[in-house]
Amino acid sequence: MICPDRPGLVSELAGWVAANGGNIRHADHHTDVGAGLFLSRIEWQLMGFGIPREAIAAAITALGERLNAQVQLRFSDELPRVAILASKQSHCLQDLLLRVQSGELPMQVPLVIANHPELEGLCRAFEVPFMHVPVLPDRKPEAEQQILDLLVEHRIELAVLAKYMQVLSSDFLDRFPEVINIHHSFLPAFKGAQPYHRAWERGVKLIGATAHYVTEDLDDGPIIEQTTVHVSHRDEVEDLIRKGRDTERLALARALRLHLRRQVMVYRGRTAVFA
Amino acid sequence: MICPDRPGLVSELAGWVAANGGNIRHADHHTDVGAGLFLSRIEWQLMGFGIPREAIAAAITALGERLNAQVQLRFSDELPRVAILASKQSHCLQDLLLRVQSGELPMQVPLVIANHPELEGLCRAFEVPFMHVPVLPDRKPEAEQQILDLLVEHRIELAVLAKYMQVLSSDFLDRFPEVINIHHSFLPAFKGAQPYHRAWERGVKLIGATAHYVTEDLDDGPIIEQTTVHVSHRDEVEDLIRKGRDTERLALARALRLHLRRQVMVYRGRTAVFA
Amino acid sequence: MICPDRPGLVSELAGWVAANGGNIRHADHHTDVGAGLFLSRIEWQLMGFGIPREAIAAAITALGERLNAQVQLRFSDELPRVAILASKQSHCLQDLLLRVQSGELPMQVPLVIANHPELEGLCRAFEVPFMHVPVLPDRKPEAEQQILDLLVEHRIELAVLAKYMQVLSSDFLDRFPEVINIHHSFLPAFKGAQPYHRAWERGVKLIGATAHYVTEDLDDGPIIEQTTVHVSHRDEVEDLIRKGRDTERLALARALRLHLRRQVMVYRGRTAVFA
Amino acid sequence: MICPDRPGLVSELAGWVAANGGNIRHADHHTDVGAGLFLSRIEWQLMGFGIPREAIAAAITALGERLNAQVQLRFSDELPRVAILASKQSHCLQDLLLRVQSGELPMQVPLVIANHPELEGLCRAFEVPFMHVPVLPDRKPEAEQQILDLLVEHRIELAVLAKYMQVLSSDFLDRFPEVINIHHSFLPAFKGAQPYHRAWERGVKLIGATAHYVTEDLDDGPIIEQTTVHVSHRDEVEDLIRKGRDTERLALARALRLHLRRQVMVYRGRTAVFA
Repeated sequence: MICPDRPGLVSELAGWVAANGGNIRHADHHTDVGAGLFLSRIEWQLMGFGIPREAIAAAITALGERLNAQVQLRFSDELPRVAILASKQSHCLQDLLLRVQSGELPMQVPLVIANHPELEGLCRAFEVPFMHVPVLPDRKPEAEQQILDLLVEHRIELAVLAKYMQVLSSDFLDRFPEVINIHHSFLPAFKGAQPYHRAWERGVKLIGATAHYVTEDLDDGPIIEQTTVHVSHRDEVEDLIRKGRDTERLALARALRLHLRRQVMVYRGRTAVFA
Repeated sequence: MICPDRPGLVSELAGWVAANGGNIRHADHHTDVGAGLFLSRIEWQLMGFGIPREAIAAAITALGERLNAQVQLRFSDELPRVAILASKQSHCLQDLLLRVQSGELPMQVPLVIANHPELEGLCRAFEVPFMHVPVLPDRKPEAEQQILDLLVEHRIELAVLAKYMQVLSSDFLDRFPEVINIHHSFLPAFKGAQPYHRAWERGVKLIGATAHYVTEDLDDGPIIEQTTVHVSHRDEVEDLIRKGRDTERLALARALRLHLRRQVMVYRGRTAVFA
Repeated sequence: MICPDRPGLVSELAGWVAANGGNIRHADHHTDVGAGLFLSRIEWQLMGFGIPREAIAAAITALGERLNAQVQLRFSDELPRVAILASKQSHCLQDLLLRVQSGELPMQVPLVIANHPELEGLCRAFEVPFMHVPVLPDRKPEAEQQILDLLVEHRIELAVLAKYMQVLSSDFLDRFPEVINIHHSFLPAFKGAQPYHRAWERGVKLIGATAHYVTEDLDDGPIIEQTTVHVSHRDEVEDLIRKGRDTERLALARALRLHLRRQVMVYRGRTAVFA
Repeated sequence: MICPDRPGLVSELAGWVAANGGNIRHADHHTDVGAGLFLSRIEWQLMGFGIPREAIAAAITALGERLNAQVQLRFSDELPRVAILASKQSHCLQDLLLRVQSGELPMQVPLVIANHPELEGLCRAFEVPFMHVPVLPDRKPEAEQQILDLLVEHRIELAVLAKYMQVLSSDFLDRFPEVINIHHSFLPAFKGAQPYHRAWERGVKLIGATAHYVTEDLDDGPIIEQTTVHVSHRDEVEDLIRKGRDTERLALARALRLHLRRQVMVYRGRTAVFA
């Protein structure tokens, strides 16, 4: 829930859960004093809860209206349908599929989309449907339309760019805004192309990776997670790329898990992460 | 507040604050499922609060009794009186005094006690009273009694062992239990004496420091904060000691700040840190 | 090369390479003053080197005798034959096989041995031979003999315990001493069984993983690499296990890469890591 | 030593030391293959060395000419004369003076220069001469001239900007090029003014500090050391500033120690750090 801050909000929310017989397992709140906003995430058990599962959404909506708040409801046993977009590099895709398999990422993957064919075998090994959607320089709108059709057809609610080396148009994002990307730098350093080459050129002593929500301004979306790793003068660009793979994997996996467990709230271009 | 877990506790607490017109600034809760315990920390503004400041303590006690809970009340504008105990090494004492001076550690230091005289000049520079209480091997109980008298006389509520190289007796701790220590290892590794020498002998690749509450079992108290730093085969014992000073300073300062802001709750030999 | 320290050793080694027309790419030296030992690792290009490849070993041996030194020679284009031993958990095995596939770990894996059958499918997907060698409580020597026979038969030079949950006997290690293990704690903390459970009990704020050479004293072998990750009071044992998987993977992969590139030298129960 | 790469350089250097009876304590080399450059740092003991101390410089120069190399000679028992420049913030200045006092930073501080008077008392406590050189917006050249005169007068070889909030002109740097700065961001992110405010605006999850040599292009000089620390949505700008102080202190102290021990070599806008 997000709403303008005022006294009594924690009490109202917790009181509503308690009045209906729910037992709160986690409750996190944050007040952004500068913005005058109150953010809250409450997780409670349905066992013994007075409102039937199918009626909770309506009750929550009513509560939100009463508090003048944006409210979102999620059931933790419903696995979101997530599409993974990739290009040729396998390390992030592979890592995500492994974590889905082990139960670490509570989601379904009905679809992997790539603009190159190389990762088809990997998807087959995980028994995940693979769609090859090439992106020709002068036919990008057609490719994006094809991707949007696939997302709709498969009822996808979130797209994860696991080293998908294409920029999504603002038109695409208007129609499908829920997208998480992994950028291979410590943003806002080295926005854009070839961050490892530029990091090597600059002679930095740490490289990083940033998992963020995608917005129209490239690499400017709300940051969910950042990780870094030490490098030295002995590391060539290929060493940065190799070390970077591990830090990319970790940042993306952590960010996605936080998102899937609804521990991330976006507001005013930033995130509150209730970890 | 700590109490046995049951539904409705968040609501009761938040409701009590709201009913009295308080605006919650931070609220953190934790349920230890295994232990069946509920822990909560609520920070609210007194401005506009319906109960007069001097009556809040009694009201909180009544609330605690009603909920069958241990409750503790603190006003963030009251600076706790903290004594620092040291020996000869200056780095932790100096660091703490600097942070008090800069306002980073919300506390008063009416007293520094040391079993050696070396740090007197440092205390004088900070205008902090210094007491030299030597600890002779066969007269330890007398020294501890002298320290206890000083703590009582100066109305000290917390003692911080900033590289005080003496073990406090269980008798001392029975009478003055609120003590934080910095141990120069990543506990439970290298409990006891000379951890850096033993870390060097063992050939570890990381060394650490642990800030913890002191209990009768040496180095076994509830851990508040741990930090580590990389070492290599090129580091001699003196390099471990040098690198360790920075990690000790940071772990102790962070732990103390968390404690002073009442973000640490101890239960069943462990801590919940609401950071 | 390891030998007693004396002046002129760097010059002798570098001079020998230069006299034969070799171009040094990396040279690292370390003097353990306490032990009076000199360690050196020199990597040079064979292009233009005056001694034919097949005669270098003999020349190196002669050099070592002249300097009273232990010397080891490796050609970086020869991929060591490494066996991976596992039990039921897949994360480390999978990670290693992926890194071999991507070229990050310069080694061959002619054989995976497990005391449980679960990981056979994974090995088949990577086209790596899998041998199931059950270890019955009262028939352990027979199982170890079977493993030793397999290691000899496949001309294995290094065994990696990738979460192989069995202790190797001293008898085994006498006959096959080159073994690397990943222990799921920050050694020497939490030696032995169930380190995550004990770390949770102790309430530590960081957990770790340690990659080390295996010796007869369990978990006491020379440490190659250690990594840590933050945990909090919100983490249950299963969260420690989940977070630990990532830190185990990283520590083992880094240690193995260092070993394979001959950047690790063992002496007096410790390692020098020329990274 | 830096020179164009060719076979035999390690041998020539080590041979020269050995031929004169020196015992090498540390030797580090690095070949930048792309640039075709060879870098080497050799540390040897003078005890038993055949060339008298006062003649070594000439011998080294001759060696450098023979090898077509830039060579620098330092005696580790000679403490460089270092000036610290500061403004109003005390944390970095204080930290450096403490480390000089404890012997951790092998240098003398004959002079602290500040454009504000606030830190005079601190310098007096450490018995370090303090000069107040105000910088008026329209009289900057005069102030810089005054500083240069002081540096010459006190025979300073290195200036450390310990939160000196003024940009040095290229004219200044032409005449006094040896300057180390601490920038309160993870460069190249947040170059220029108010990095913590901009980091907060951007919603990053890690903040950093960068110690670097100063060049004409602001914040673009060769990086020596970078450190980071986690931040969360709960941290306000003042929390970033507070957390940043610790990471600034550490980065600057580490970089300065590396520089003073001549473990840093600058080439082509980057550094090799032989740590």
